[in-house]
Amino acid sequence: MSHQDTIDVRFESISPAEFFYRNRQMAGFGNPTQAVYSTVRELVENSLDSCDDAQTLPMIEIEIQSVKSDIVTIKVSDNGAGVPPDQVPQAFGRVLYGSKYAQQQKRGTFGLGVTMAILYGQISTDSPVIIHSKTQNSNAILYRLLVDVKNNSPIIESMEELQRPYVGTTVIIQLKGDLKRAQDRIIEYIRLSTISTPHATLKLRIDDEIHEDLGGSSKTIPAPISPSKPHPRSVDMEVLRRLISTHGKKNLDEFLQVSFQKIGVRTSARFLQFMNLSPNKIISELTRDELSHLAQALRKYDGFERPDSKCLSIIGKDDFLKSITSVFNTKTAEYSIRGVSEWQGNPFIIEAVLATGDDFPNSDIPTLYRFVNRVPLLYDSSDGILTRVLKRVNWSRYGARSSEPIAIFLHLCSTKIPFKAAGKQSLASIPEIEQEASQVLKELGRKLGKITARSIRRVRESKKMREFSKSFRQIARFGTALSGDDDVPSTDRLVKRLFEVEPDE
Amino acid sequence: MSHQDTIDVRFESISPAEFFYRNRQMAGFGNPTQAVYSTVRELVENSLDSCDDAQTLPMIEIEIQSVKSDIVTIKVSDNGAGVPPDQVPQAFGRVLYGSKYAQQQKRGTFGLGVTMAILYGQISTDSPVIIHSKTQNSNAILYRLLVDVKNNSPIIESMEELQRPYVGTTVIIQLKGDLKRAQDRIIEYIRLSTISTPHATLKLRIDDEIHEDLGGSSKTIPAPISPSKPHPRSVDMEVLRRLISTHGKKNLDEFLQVSFQKIGVRTSARFLQFMNLSPNKIISELTRDELSHLAQALRKYDGFERPDSKCLSIIGKDDFLKSITSVFNTKTAEYSIRGVSEWQGNPFIIEAVLATGDDFPNSDIPTLYRFVNRVPLLYDSSDGILTRVLKRVNWSRYGARSSEPIAIFLHLCSTKIPFKAAGKQSLASIPEIEQEASQVLKELGRKLGKITARSIRRVRESKKMREFSKSFRQIARFGTALSGDDDVPSTDRLVKRLFEVEPDE
Repeated sequence: MSHQDTIDVRFESISPAEFFYRNRQMAGFGNPTQAVYSTVRELVENSLDSCDDAQTLPMIEIEIQSVKSDIVTIKVSDNGAGVPPDQVPQAFGRVLYGSKYAQQQKRGTFGLGVTMAILYGQISTDSPVIIHSKTQNSNAILYRLLVDVKNNSPIIESMEELQRPYVGTTVIIQLKGDLKRAQDRIIEYIRLSTISTPHATLKLRIDDEIHEDLGGSSKTIPAPISPSKPHPRSVDMEVLRRLISTHGKKNLDEFLQVSFQKIGVRTSARFLQFMNLSPNKIISELTRDELSHLAQALRKYDGFERPDSKCLSIIGKDDFLKSITSVFNTKTAEYSIRGVSEWQGNPFIIEAVLATGDDFPNSDIPTLYRFVNRVPLLYDSSDGILTRVLKRVNWSRYGARSSEPIAIFLHLCSTKIPFKAAGKQSLASIPEIEQEASQVLKELGRKLGKITARSIRRVRESKKMREFSKSFRQIARFGTALSGDDDVPSTDRLVKRLFEVEPDE
Repeated sequence: MSHQDTIDVRFESISPAEFFYRNRQMAGFGNPTQAVYSTVRELVENSLDSCDDAQTLPMIEIEIQSVKSDIVTIKVSDNGAGVPPDQVPQAFGRVLYGSKYAQQQKRGTFGLGVTMAILYGQISTDSPVIIHSKTQNSNAILYRLLVDVKNNSPIIESMEELQRPYVGTTVIIQLKGDLKRAQDRIIEYIRLSTISTPHATLKLRIDDEIHEDLGGSSKTIPAPISPSKPHPRSVDMEVLRRLISTHGKKNLDEFLQVSFQKIGVRTSARFLQFMNLSPNKIISELTRDELSHLAQALRKYDGFERPDSKCLSIIGKDDFLKSITSVFNTKTAEYSIRGVSEWQGNPFIIEAVLATGDDFPNSDIPTLYRFVNRVPLLYDSSDGILTRVLKRVNWSRYGARSSEPIAIFLHLCSTKIPFKAAGKQSLASIPEIEQEASQVLKELGRKLGKITARSIRRVRESKKMREFSKSFRQIARFGTALSGDDDVPSTDRLVKRLFEVEPDE
């Protein structure tokens, strides 16, 4: 073994802002096309979440203006809850800071996306972000911010009071980007967003050339949802330690009931008996081994009910069907839903619509439109498990070939989405999600099978009817001629009656 | 617009450890199978990097023991540089802290992987990591550490001096994992690692059942590499600001020469003239517009030479070919190399080997073995650009079908690898890398074409030769019979001479 005399290994720490600055492709900012798309996406998602917080019908305006050939300005305005003035710098100028971390369905999850967009604008055009926000309890303030990448903190360039007519937030980011190449995806993204959030109105303006006013097919604000306590099956040592630091003085029985959903008096008693533990033991006095044993038992005990779904917000059958038919010309549309199920203690629901119609591409397998927590996913479809599950279904068995072109709109809601990367485009493999997605698709397949069979039967029936009417007409003509009469009687009613007897379905 | 009376939006900050704890699937720790695999991988990569730092022939021992059906202990020992005792807690117990951030090729890049493995062990089995390390200038110290997830900082459970026979590091992590399902991938990973680091010896022990001593096909330590200054084309506003904070008092001419690679006296002069800027202007006195203009010009000016490659470490033709043939039975093996090229100012080289042989799967397109910075990538092959580039090549044109099964071993080295996610399994789309990868593959395709043509010709020749010898033998027999002689003369030499005239190549 040989060693050099001096080995100079330098250690250093980088901030999360620095990490994502260096690896921005992981967050969806890998190239100028993606950057424009992701900026729009992150701002629109923030706006829609903020409107959910405010329980208001979202009215979002998106304006994209080319400044130079490769520089664009993106402005998104909403009528959401607004951001409290003292929170604006941190909420926008700091990575991994946000209002997204509660145990409930949200579009945003990381407190990362908008700050990445701001950062991208800053490093590519040296422009600060402009944020103009007003909450119900504060005056409207306009900020100009930059991000201090090394320290992951905001730099306030300027801050002033400036009137705005209503509560909400407007964000303006200037960045280097390829608008021409991103444009179609952006329009597609906005259109699909009106399917997953049908009560939102989205107005898109690109360079005074494109004017799209979309959405609003529903006028009903979805019922508000609320965060849940953790489900006992989601427990690991970290979760347990945190709960103990809050509830350490309680005894085991109280601790279980106060810390977790789905544990009441009886479940707690049954579980503790199963664990062979005294209900009166103080939780903070458990040994490390006992804690480890407890965590494992909580994960494995199968007497807990499934996690509750009051923290989830599905689109729902009526709205989902209506919003799809308002965007696409469909011939038929069928809805299915599975859940509440769970993965690692996180509740999830999958709802999906199978639609047929000439608007969709013609293919042996259905075209898949993916949505998670009301957000359409457009990139990296081939990477994720949803596409893989779709391909595993034997669509020809359900008569996919003999039908019109087919599309599947699949919506996964969960308190936690297992994204493969911070760019939030495709899902990592989670057996429980794959299993349920597969079931939903097969259910829709069976419905498709029925539709196809029905339409084949209809074709056959109408052919039969044509033959009958031809024969009846001939018989009628023949009979008339025999009787010497001139007036051939109509046989139409006869044929109609004959075929009305047969059920259409 | 309706607003609720109180809108309670809570803002909070999470640490990078918390981010990756919540989204561990992004870092390769999404399920118990992946967790075992990633733990081995991260520890082995750390060890190999550390041996590079020490400029020593790596001797890495990997021991995996099942503790219970779903609990394993993974121990990896190396003879690398060791970690200075005061750095151990931070280097192992803190996310985004490490020795990996210099502008040079490294296996590790994020200062994330090993801490993630430690964190996974801790949340799944409540066990601290054990680290035993000795550097050349320090005594051997044994640490037991946990990670404080909320604060992203190490918790030292214990620390003691404990002798170890040589400089290096041993890490022991206990975690919940599915060894049975991970085992084959781990063996494959170790085998392929001996291809990309042929001077390393890797010993793998699994449960006293599997003993594999692999590698060491080369005895030469690769030439040490050293970090580079940034290339001018890699400049964005952030890079420029940082350089100015160090060199702010210099004038423009000095600033350019001292800050960047590939800018000397003449290039600086030419560039400044092109920019129409005075060489004597003090850099920190430039206006914001001037700086923005400067950054843009540095990125666009095409008079800079390509980035240098002294920060890169290729495997090299001889070692690459030898290491492949020491792991696989190959019939033929051809090497190609492209570069130095660059993407966004980062230098990169692609080298690749096309090998044929029965060890490889039979398929219409070659089997791809991907390596980046001497690390084999086993997961998510279908997601990345390298596989996509492979599929775009028209392999049938090069006679892929008429050849033996084919494999491509492709190695990308760069100071920066555009991974799609922190789990480091597949690459995001970078046009420059796709372009060069495509060129390398086509070059190898042409070589394959020659090999195939040669072997077709050889088959044809030997068939011709058989026909000729048959005819000559008959003629000889016939002539002998005619002459009344008994001894039929051999025609073998005649045939051989005839066919030696034709060139074999």
